Amino acid sequence: MDEINNIVLIGAGNVATNIGYAFREAGLNILQVYNRTPQLSQSLAEKLDSVPVTEIDSITTNADLYLFAVSDDAIGRVALKVMLQGQFVVHTSGSVSMDVLKQASERRGVLYPLQTFSKSRRIDPGNIPFCIEASNELDLKQLKSLAGKISNKVFLIDSEKRKVLHLAAVFACNFPNYMYYIAERIITGTGLDFDMLRPLIAETAAKVMDTGPAHVQTGPARRKDEKIMAQHLKLLGENEAWKNLYKSISNEIMKM
Amino acid sequence: MDEINNIVLIGAGNVATNIGYAFREAGLNILQVYNRTPQLSQSLAEKLDSVPVTEIDSITTNADLYLFAVSDDAIGRVALKVMLQGQFVVHTSGSVSMDVLKQASERRGVLYPLQTFSKSRRIDPGNIPFCIEASNELDLKQLKSLAGKISNKVFLIDSEKRKVLHLAAVFACNFPNYMYYIAERIITGTGLDFDMLRPLIAETAAKVMDTGPAHVQTGPARRKDEKIMAQHLKLLGENEAWKNLYKSISNEIMKM
Repeated sequence: MDEINNIVLIGAGNVATNIGYAFREAGLNILQVYNRTPQLSQSLAEKLDSVPVTEIDSITTNADLYLFAVSDDAIGRVALKVMLQGQFVVHTSGSVSMDVLKQASERRGVLYPLQTFSKSRRIDPGNIPFCIEASNELDLKQLKSLAGKISNKVFLIDSEKRKVLHLAAVFACNFPNYMYYIAERIITGTGLDFDMLRPLIAETAAKVMDTGPAHVQTGPARRKDEKIMAQHLKLLGENEAWKNLYKSISNEIMKM
Repeated sequence: MDEINNIVLIGAGNVATNIGYAFREAGLNILQVYNRTPQLSQSLAEKLDSVPVTEIDSITTNADLYLFAVSDDAIGRVALKVMLQGQFVVHTSGSVSMDVLKQASERRGVLYPLQTFSKSRRIDPGNIPFCIEASNELDLKQLKSLAGKISNKVFLIDSEKRKVLHLAAVFACNFPNYMYYIAERIITGTGLDFDMLRPLIAETAAKVMDTGPAHVQTGPARRKDEKIMAQHLKLLGENEAWKNLYKSISNEIMKM
């Protein structure tokens, strides 16, 4: 089986940056980094010992893999513009079907990292779950071998299940982060510091690392403590949106 | 200043257990552990080299501090039943005023650990923020010194601010945990494993350890990606409650 060694990275955002680092650490070659904004392609290419490209026409045809780490809407559109002759094209999105690449190449796949990334924060890639999928067996094997070089957690997941996983990820990541934000806003202006809440946030996440969330649910709603819930609604004052959130989440917890 | 050395622990639940461990590790004496259920008082007393008590009348009058780690509703009621002659009585609740102990003693206080506890999980107490309050200066000093023996994070917080902090804690802990629960339920039955989401949960919490949640908010709502949000609502199917939660939290994120 041929191995994937030479990669073109399309995109220079959070995902491209973090997967790029992981590839480099695993000894793979990033032939080019494409982004139409020169500063972005240059900045990431430098970090990856790669070559920045700002014109789609300048993308090489010599890579083993073209990785599209761009916004969901752009994947299909950009892929069509790259001059490809049946090479392996892969995107990194959680919620876009593999078939968005159908017109671009008959060899297509998905490499979806189930993680939240920032450019400024390096994560140990070995711990990132990678969900992979490919349009044929041989490419799937290659993609599995590639993902296995950067992570111990590689899962074969089809497009439909990947979409469910992405929905679950919104509840596991984006919504908890918004809850942290409300917590921060609640204490803003009281002289209390968000730092006081950080050990609690860390422990709440740590608790579900070895148990299910249902087993460690605590709080006034879990205890069905109407008195405290009424006190909390009063403290939320005029903020109808947060009061409604408080009420509906508490109602659901009481049903658990 | 007299130091607090001898403590009676009223309660044998999650908070009593974890604070009890912290006191023991700091070399303090737990004279007695009171709980009306013999197994509970015995089990905790054993762990703390203490004496179990199941009758309120058997509680000693020789302690420096009586710590009420019982349910919010029970604090005032139980405190009144203990035969006290002006000793220092302290509760551990986030949302109950210090004055609930007014009838029990003129020396009263609060020692509120801003953390989520389980009996089966030991937490490094040095990292727990303790919010303290007392009805007179001397007792406040004693309580501060006591809390300082088990944690580096001791804050003087009055009853009103403590209630705000407790509300914030619901958003920082109880509600994120319920979001994890929804995530788990979403993938249940699909063959996907909650373990796949754990690195994401851990990283989401880790991200706000050194930055504010507003800076790291990601996801379809943050990108105002209507297409993906519509897809997610469709995937949530018949679950109107979760669809409403998805919609209202996403709406708030879009307003950020």
